Amino acid sequence: MAAMRIAVLKSLHRTTRLHNISQRFLLHRNEVRPISAIMSPPSMAVVYDNNGPPDKVTRMVEIPPVEVKENDICVKVLASPINPSDINRIEGVYPVRPQVPAVGGYEGVGEVYSIGSAVRGLSPGDWVIPSPPSSGMWQTYVVKEQSVWHKIDKQTPIEYAATVTVNPLTALKMLEDFVKLNSGDAIVQNGATSIVGQCIIQLARIRGVHSINITRDRSGADEVKEKLKKLGADEVFTESQLEVKNVKSLLTNMPEPALGFNCVGGNAASLVLKFLRNGGTMVTYGGMSKKPITVSTSSFIFKDLSLRGFWLQKWMSTEKAGECRNMIDHLLGLVRAGKLKYEMEMVPFNDFPTALDKALGKQGSHPKQVIAF
Amino acid sequence: MAAMRIAVLKSLHRTTRLHNISQRFLLHRNEVRPISAIMSPPSMAVVYDNNGPPDKVTRMVEIPPVEVKENDICVKVLASPINPSDINRIEGVYPVRPQVPAVGGYEGVGEVYSIGSAVRGLSPGDWVIPSPPSSGMWQTYVVKEQSVWHKIDKQTPIEYAATVTVNPLTALKMLEDFVKLNSGDAIVQNGATSIVGQCIIQLARIRGVHSINITRDRSGADEVKEKLKKLGADEVFTESQLEVKNVKSLLTNMPEPALGFNCVGGNAASLVLKFLRNGGTMVTYGGMSKKPITVSTSSFIFKDLSLRGFWLQKWMSTEKAGECRNMIDHLLGLVRAGKLKYEMEMVPFNDFPTALDKALGKQGSHPKQVIAF
Repeated sequence: MAAMRIAVLKSLHRTTRLHNISQRFLLHRNEVRPISAIMSPPSMAVVYDNNGPPDKVTRMVEIPPVEVKENDICVKVLASPINPSDINRIEGVYPVRPQVPAVGGYEGVGEVYSIGSAVRGLSPGDWVIPSPPSSGMWQTYVVKEQSVWHKIDKQTPIEYAATVTVNPLTALKMLEDFVKLNSGDAIVQNGATSIVGQCIIQLARIRGVHSINITRDRSGADEVKEKLKKLGADEVFTESQLEVKNVKSLLTNMPEPALGFNCVGGNAASLVLKFLRNGGTMVTYGGMSKKPITVSTSSFIFKDLSLRGFWLQKWMSTEKAGECRNMIDHLLGLVRAGKLKYEMEMVPFNDFPTALDKALGKQGSHPKQVIAF
Repeated sequence: MAAMRIAVLKSLHRTTRLHNISQRFLLHRNEVRPISAIMSPPSMAVVYDNNGPPDKVTRMVEIPPVEVKENDICVKVLASPINPSDINRIEGVYPVRPQVPAVGGYEGVGEVYSIGSAVRGLSPGDWVIPSPPSSGMWQTYVVKEQSVWHKIDKQTPIEYAATVTVNPLTALKMLEDFVKLNSGDAIVQNGATSIVGQCIIQLARIRGVHSINITRDRSGADEVKEKLKKLGADEVFTESQLEVKNVKSLLTNMPEPALGFNCVGGNAASLVLKFLRNGGTMVTYGGMSKKPITVSTSSFIFKDLSLRGFWLQKWMSTEKAGECRNMIDHLLGLVRAGKLKYEMEMVPFNDFPTALDKALGKQGSHPKQVIAF
């Protein structure tokens, strides 16, 4: 049993820093390391050996030290969130996911702990985020090549540095990529209380773009409306408030929106489509209701609607990292200036199982869970 | 009664050549025409005074002669089809339609009968089509401004000249406008037996583009398949043949299609989406099943599908007539060269009610009905 466990850990330790099978075999044949090699500290990690229900298949494991090669950086992780896509990766339902066994987590922020001999431009103490993000952030020490890491301003609130990529960058990219928006234009979105939704409201407002926001019917809807209006939302409607013949008659002092965002599906997607102007575009980036989108043929023919999709991970795998990093610097600048905010709950690493239960929705509604290491 | 009838005819006669109310009133105040004015012959027309079921609201009426002004051309109509959109205009369910009372019909071909004094470049005997098409073609003589008419080659078979715009031009424009297709690429479509579908098969084949064609389940499906294959279809499937786990496994020697066309909706639209490759586009131009299109959110996010629409009438109202006319000349050239064909049934004008019943689907399945005047 002990021997098996060590084998699992060795395999795991290699998968956390190597991405391809052939490299893994090379390392296997060359197990003897020079005595002078820089080694990372041992790392406490949230590991899953198989895909499945995250609260069943994940466990805390200490991963042995790994070598910090000449182009590598060892980062002491400071914070990393539990995103829905992290959960889907563990469940095995996300289209692109790490080979198991794997360490969970995909984005986060850390402090440079030690650097390989050929590393230039980064020093111990610097704050860095993986950009584009990459798997294995739910652990105390991560070793990855220098090219993975993007240095950020240490004045940034740690929870925002940890979460800037997956949600705010999605919001920014979707506002910029599909329709040319000018000051005075409008957008419409469902799932407006999500972090992406809150970022869209604030980033639209900064551009002088109005936002029409659709939320679920639930107790506390008035508070939610007030909260979103404080962020800059122009209009906030619950789905049931939109059960009217012509939703556009509810708009005042605002053009019909040319761009809509859907992260829900089902009726909430139909409501976004109803608000769109002729020739408008709806971008789908989530499917929280697990219901499909239903559209009449005449919406395409006579209303000339376009339906598109957005997947951050795919975009980041095709674009130059530079564009992505400039956008992140811009977003973190807005955070530091107090112009971009959203609610999060920081949780100590030891309480990971509780945070995971909250992220899985087992304890009602909670803010985004961010693990502090 | 007689007085009322004349009033209707007068009003009708004016609406066939004038588009705006104020002009109509001007004519009203100026009823006395110069004696030397060129007048059209009286015109036998299919007229409807109100929107409703076409077989109930249409009737044959003789419209009195109308003045051929200096920039006008009087055209003796030779042939004009009954398209589904003509029926929808009469029913009042088409988004853009002429004011009632109106003469039916939207495309067709005719021979120049007489010309206004300022007309240059067209002479009696020339063959012309309205391009972009315009309402009022179901009558024996039409008077419209010279700019409406496009001269075509008199070697063109009359039934193709009469029908080239609404269907073949849709097929050509949709193949050219949404996705850049290269020789060796593939497209997928449902409603493949429609005239647009048949044109897509042939126009794709001319470009070296493979076509995957989906048809309804019906008796005679094998004959339909043979017919489409003769036109150049690479693959023809009935909907039930596509009830398999992975439709793409049915394809041989063909890339996954980047472009799909939907004129049906419902399950037939879902089948088009299943064939599309990652990043593919489906263009909806019809909704024959009257069922909506249902799409999973993941099709947009992870498969990066785009759903668009095409409406010929809108395109023609926004583009320069020149582009449209060049495309029509190209299409009629293909017809004359025997490279573009589809089935039609020519019907004498006197049998219009029978042709209308056939077009309304009251007598089973029939080829496109083309009225010969």
